[in-house]
Amino acid sequence: MSDSTERVDPALAAGNRKQLAGYAAQHFKWQVEGGVATITLNRPERKNPLTFDSYAELRDLFGQLKYATDVKAVVLAGAGDNFCSGGDVHEIIGPLVRLKAPELLMFTRMTGDLVKAMRTCPQPIVAAIDGVCAGAGAIMAMASDLRLGTARSKTAFLFNRVGLAGCDMGACAMLPRIVGQGRASELLYTGRALGGEEGERWGFFNRLCAPEAVLGEAQALARDLAAGPTFANGITKTMLHQEWSMTIEQAIEAEAQAQAICMLTEDFSRAYHAFVAKQKPVFQGD
Amino acid sequence: MSDSTERVDPALAAGNRKQLAGYAAQHFKWQVEGGVATITLNRPERKNPLTFDSYAELRDLFGQLKYATDVKAVVLAGAGDNFCSGGDVHEIIGPLVRLKAPELLMFTRMTGDLVKAMRTCPQPIVAAIDGVCAGAGAIMAMASDLRLGTARSKTAFLFNRVGLAGCDMGACAMLPRIVGQGRASELLYTGRALGGEEGERWGFFNRLCAPEAVLGEAQALARDLAAGPTFANGITKTMLHQEWSMTIEQAIEAEAQAQAICMLTEDFSRAYHAFVAKQKPVFQGD
Amino acid sequence: MSDSTERVDPALAAGNRKQLAGYAAQHFKWQVEGGVATITLNRPERKNPLTFDSYAELRDLFGQLKYATDVKAVVLAGAGDNFCSGGDVHEIIGPLVRLKAPELLMFTRMTGDLVKAMRTCPQPIVAAIDGVCAGAGAIMAMASDLRLGTARSKTAFLFNRVGLAGCDMGACAMLPRIVGQGRASELLYTGRALGGEEGERWGFFNRLCAPEAVLGEAQALARDLAAGPTFANGITKTMLHQEWSMTIEQAIEAEAQAQAICMLTEDFSRAYHAFVAKQKPVFQGD
Repeated sequence: MSDSTERVDPALAAGNRKQLAGYAAQHFKWQVEGGVATITLNRPERKNPLTFDSYAELRDLFGQLKYATDVKAVVLAGAGDNFCSGGDVHEIIGPLVRLKAPELLMFTRMTGDLVKAMRTCPQPIVAAIDGVCAGAGAIMAMASDLRLGTARSKTAFLFNRVGLAGCDMGACAMLPRIVGQGRASELLYTGRALGGEEGERWGFFNRLCAPEAVLGEAQALARDLAAGPTFANGITKTMLHQEWSMTIEQAIEAEAQAQAICMLTEDFSRAYHAFVAKQKPVFQGD
Repeated sequence: MSDSTERVDPALAAGNRKQLAGYAAQHFKWQVEGGVATITLNRPERKNPLTFDSYAELRDLFGQLKYATDVKAVVLAGAGDNFCSGGDVHEIIGPLVRLKAPELLMFTRMTGDLVKAMRTCPQPIVAAIDGVCAGAGAIMAMASDLRLGTARSKTAFLFNRVGLAGCDMGACAMLPRIVGQGRASELLYTGRALGGEEGERWGFFNRLCAPEAVLGEAQALARDLAAGPTFANGITKTMLHQEWSMTIEQAIEAEAQAQAICMLTEDFSRAYHAFVAKQKPVFQGD
Repeated sequence: MSDSTERVDPALAAGNRKQLAGYAAQHFKWQVEGGVATITLNRPERKNPLTFDSYAELRDLFGQLKYATDVKAVVLAGAGDNFCSGGDVHEIIGPLVRLKAPELLMFTRMTGDLVKAMRTCPQPIVAAIDGVCAGAGAIMAMASDLRLGTARSKTAFLFNRVGLAGCDMGACAMLPRIVGQGRASELLYTGRALGGEEGERWGFFNRLCAPEAVLGEAQALARDLAAGPTFANGITKTMLHQEWSMTIEQAIEAEAQAQAICMLTEDFSRAYHAFVAKQKPVFQGD
């Protein structure tokens, strides 16, 4: 008979506790420093488009982040002067026009699964957005938790320009919640570019930075988050989308339960004792 | 036995494919040019109020637009210097104060059915709003997809001024999604007029135009939309309200299906081939 | 046999029609004048923190307001130059770090019940916010219907600073609906203070006032609401949160029913007859 008092780590037991700092990315750059991972879309000569391969790898990586213990916040950026030009016309749109319905649904579900994985991993995601942020790139920006932009950035939901609907990867659900229903409608019907200052005024960007500073500021913000109560941050993230279609009564009950869990963490106790001792708390995410 | 390879047009078969360009409107002006219909509320001497008859005709017309093949976008405007003063005091409110509960519910359901018809037809609706935009007029503005205003426009949800609640024709669901819960609460509790510049700042208006230009700019915007992938536009419209009370996971799955349908259209293929040939795509809505 | 034509007052019959003007508050100031109640959190030397006792009394009082006939609007304010500093570190956080899960859930449910009671009572609540508005104080501001602020006010959702999640008392449901998902995420992840001007720009505040005027302006606004059709105002309030997670079709049907009830009130008839007689209507809330 096993010792029932032995401490069991269910994550380890299931073999699913991940260390991702050393992950060798194939289709983008991946760098982890002090608990902050930076994903850099890295085909600057084409403004960092997505391909079938990079979509799938991003989806899988965000899926693994759910179980990672060494990554506490994520920065999403593009190499060079642009964030991401979206699905590559030659490598994605070309093949798509020849597919049949079941194959197309397999593709749209895969892209949607990327957004689900970005929303489901507990790490807050900070997007650093300069230059072109278009199509699926604009969706990835939206699926991030926080967005730093530049005045010269151009965010465009280009779908209708290529004959498609604005409803791509959750856009019709996410964009109205960020900028309001009327402004979201304009962006999705027309595909016109949203400028940086306009984007800040509308609440799409949390703030604007100089182009040479936007990545650094995003990483600094991510470091601040990673130094905070990261278990609680993950619960904040979960609840921020979990409550989208709850009644207010359901939301309040869900938060009562979620916050009660957080009150059982050491981080809560650390903060209290630091306050009493007039010190700054050192959070450890448990 | 019929030839099973014969192409069946289910819309024609059901006798419900409509041509509405020649529709003879009774209670407002109706004009169709190049796929863009303009509805002009046309009692300028009274600031274009609604009556029982115009409510019902608008509801029926938007209902028919669902099956129309010759209208791709709609402009909603008022004659003279005003958009719409809402339900006429003498012709609507007077009779209402004498009705009983079942009759009142029949009326409020009819007005709500107008909003449902506006949201259900696939054509994007662009409201051109100058001067007074009050009561049910403000609701029709809100039930439109895009709103162009003027600096002098005054939008007022007057319901509480006539002893009623702000919840009229879906206002408590739509207005918070357009301008946020706090600003919507103020407008609905107080009935105060929202000015043009404030309305643009809040995202109620997509932009402001000069009074003499607002109708023309709304029609130009509608023409742009009508020249786009109109089948896809209709899907965008559907999803923009379909996803209001879905979870994010449900929304992403719904969009995966909806976008896969759009990827099977000729318009998607046209856009791709135009891009490759460095030409501007010519969309045909199929 | 009782006379079946006798008028029965179900509220009186149930003994639950309340007169609250004379209520003797224990843990804050309570003052009723002309149908407007003012609640003043009143420990200015500590910036008006909440304690277990004041939480519970506020919850119970807002619960009783549901049945009150002599209070038509509520103002919520803080004594001195601050609104509310949230849960007291010594009186609330200290004890909480020693509680077990079931006790913690009892606490988080109690705080959530305060928000539910604030949203469920029919009286519109106007918050007058100067100085510090933090933690549970920021939640109470958010659970109010209208918010007047000052330029120097600082609103902070401090939860992550004390090791907790931003999901407290419904914050992840309410804040995105007021300021949008991106801005709400920043405030909840970072705990940073929202300044007064920024808060007005974002729609958190309905307007800013001078510090010495904010309480008076909030009371004036509450008096205006109390002089309006108060039964209809209560229905507006109900629907403003009732429709959060309805489809648009459900919302329109719900409003058709709710507005039909309002059309049966005397206030609706009073407004019509006053209009016809070119007089200002005198509403009585029935």
